[in-house]
Amino acid sequence: MQKLKIDINRVKYNLENVAQVYNSGEDGYTRLAFSKEEDQAIDWVAEELKSYGARVRKDAVGNLYGRIGPEDAPVIAFGSHLDTVKNGGLFDGAVGVFTGLECIRALKEQNFDSNMAYELVCFKGEEGNPLGGTFGSRTVTGQINPEAFDEKLLKSLEVSEQDIRNAMDTLPEYKAFIEMHIEQGTVLENNDNRTGIVTNIAGISRTHIKVIGTPGHSGTMPMNSRKDALVNASEIVLHIHKGAKKVKDGTVATVGQLDVMPNLATVIPGTVELTFEVRSGSQERIDAFEKEMLDWVTANYDVEILPGVKKKASSLSPEVRALLNRAANTLGLPVMEMVSGANHDANSLTNHTEVGMLFVPSIDGISHNPEENSYWEDIANAADIMLQALMMYREE
Amino acid sequence: MQKLKIDINRVKYNLENVAQVYNSGEDGYTRLAFSKEEDQAIDWVAEELKSYGARVRKDAVGNLYGRIGPEDAPVIAFGSHLDTVKNGGLFDGAVGVFTGLECIRALKEQNFDSNMAYELVCFKGEEGNPLGGTFGSRTVTGQINPEAFDEKLLKSLEVSEQDIRNAMDTLPEYKAFIEMHIEQGTVLENNDNRTGIVTNIAGISRTHIKVIGTPGHSGTMPMNSRKDALVNASEIVLHIHKGAKKVKDGTVATVGQLDVMPNLATVIPGTVELTFEVRSGSQERIDAFEKEMLDWVTANYDVEILPGVKKKASSLSPEVRALLNRAANTLGLPVMEMVSGANHDANSLTNHTEVGMLFVPSIDGISHNPEENSYWEDIANAADIMLQALMMYREE
Repeated sequence: MQKLKIDINRVKYNLENVAQVYNSGEDGYTRLAFSKEEDQAIDWVAEELKSYGARVRKDAVGNLYGRIGPEDAPVIAFGSHLDTVKNGGLFDGAVGVFTGLECIRALKEQNFDSNMAYELVCFKGEEGNPLGGTFGSRTVTGQINPEAFDEKLLKSLEVSEQDIRNAMDTLPEYKAFIEMHIEQGTVLENNDNRTGIVTNIAGISRTHIKVIGTPGHSGTMPMNSRKDALVNASEIVLHIHKGAKKVKDGTVATVGQLDVMPNLATVIPGTVELTFEVRSGSQERIDAFEKEMLDWVTANYDVEILPGVKKKASSLSPEVRALLNRAANTLGLPVMEMVSGANHDANSLTNHTEVGMLFVPSIDGISHNPEENSYWEDIANAADIMLQALMMYREE
Repeated sequence: MQKLKIDINRVKYNLENVAQVYNSGEDGYTRLAFSKEEDQAIDWVAEELKSYGARVRKDAVGNLYGRIGPEDAPVIAFGSHLDTVKNGGLFDGAVGVFTGLECIRALKEQNFDSNMAYELVCFKGEEGNPLGGTFGSRTVTGQINPEAFDEKLLKSLEVSEQDIRNAMDTLPEYKAFIEMHIEQGTVLENNDNRTGIVTNIAGISRTHIKVIGTPGHSGTMPMNSRKDALVNASEIVLHIHKGAKKVKDGTVATVGQLDVMPNLATVIPGTVELTFEVRSGSQERIDAFEKEMLDWVTANYDVEILPGVKKKASSLSPEVRALLNRAANTLGLPVMEMVSGANHDANSLTNHTEVGMLFVPSIDGISHNPEENSYWEDIANAADIMLQALMMYREE
């Protein structure tokens, strides 16, 4: 079969150019979901796709699709998103779109001979936003309730209920969907910067814990008469942290948010509210770990427990995983299988098609931050595996 | 000598009446420092003092003085403050003013024969306020810098720099000053509600500790790669709490204020800022405990240390303590000596006269809160000891 390679310099040039031109932030890169910068970046990709001879369309909520290959041929799709958090980095989302664009260019320009069609997808509003993260991918896979949103809110984002209805459940039929994304963690870096092949997307379970103490004067209440909510909350934070460290299967648990009341130097904390989050590729592990922690907390402290966000863990396609492994093997590039701790558009598609993901190593695991960084060599490796997999899929 | 008793029903009636009439709060009682409610309550006391035949004056910052007894006689003074925190209780400060008022009434109405003069003092702005707590007592004892305050701030509180200069260092010459106050802790309650005689007013030392971690995605950063600022801060909170518990000489240490950044469920805490406070009747203990804790913190964590408020511990007058003990003994009322963990106006006067304090037990130690409470019987006991001490002082 033909041997094609990604032109990583073109990917770098396009990505940096679009990120600099369509940027509303002072620090790092800001292309918020539903902003004009997100739309402009998507439009830039649309024009580029057209210049490669792709058949381009946008759906009613603004997701972009660009296809090459025979009409009515079976389709293999790939892509990611172009929106960023506020003051985000260069790579989150964009790296999947711009390497995907390069795959389309390479296949088209080299006249790669296939009975497959190839489609680049750029989903709208993947990052946290008022309509919920992974908005575009959840809409076209029918996972949104169009009536759930406030009309004023929709108007402010220039999306209508009718737009959502028009885009609902319109995902084309794909043989497979592969998303390439930065890892946003340190697993790959700690393993010689191999390319990651995702086995599962971690589920998330959050619980809000209100720790109840007795407020008191910091000077007059003897140590042994105190019921200090922050002392108790600190014990809970440490118990959760140590508990997750013991698990050793990639499960992570975090208390990222903690508020002290009344939060004055002179008052013994009366109440602390914190959010306990656990993520794991195994839903059984999430359920068991959460139960173990909450049983311990309720047995030992005066607390109120309120369930928060729950997202089930999902497995990615064994066929696509095998394809990606074979593609890497063909190119002699090292890979490792791993769980994705973050949610991605790919997760929205798991009930609709065979889904796979490739992870690019992140330097120091930093993401959602101007310091977010990856080596271009690592991006090239993952992109080459993606391109190779697209070409090999035909032969399956 | 004559036997006089406090009329506790009158104290209760006056205190509850003033607290209900001059109240800007919805929950509990609110007579903020420099508010019209504080002024109105002070004016009510002034009128009452005049009706008992006292010689009444206000100084330039609004402290109130009411004196009975021979002109040019040596003076023994007593009193407290009438301002409250927002949504405070009935007793903090007010119990010392209203029982003092009752002492003036009892001495005057019973024509108590003395070569002493008796002066009730009501200090302005004792609670935390924009000019600093114990404002009135620090002003008349020369512990304020009149130039330190913003002109707009002074104007908003209806105090001028000239007012402060006029009141500076104008504390009359007293033989002694005795403040009666609620304990705001549980030491007396844990000792059969005896009346407290204060030996020392605790010093305060605060340190701001900034705990530095590395922010990261809560789903993608493996447990062993994390530098979680909240996990480290939790260990610091617990180390300080356990350290203070071990001391067992009444020393207390508190982390009352703690802020997590960025404080989002999905982000591993990057920074935590907390305030570590230690209070003790012994300045040596404060210095040693603080050093021990900060040495441990800096040896074990990535932190920035910034000194906060420092107030030296002070000893009260052995003569006044002996007088109060004799007065209680004469009445057959049980007392115990103890350290005051809170600061009080009395502390401002320690360099100017012989100072003593009486503490009334607080139910459950609750203060600065609508739930603040004390038994009227305990208030009557402390007030009787005060009145007896005033009468006995003459005979020294």
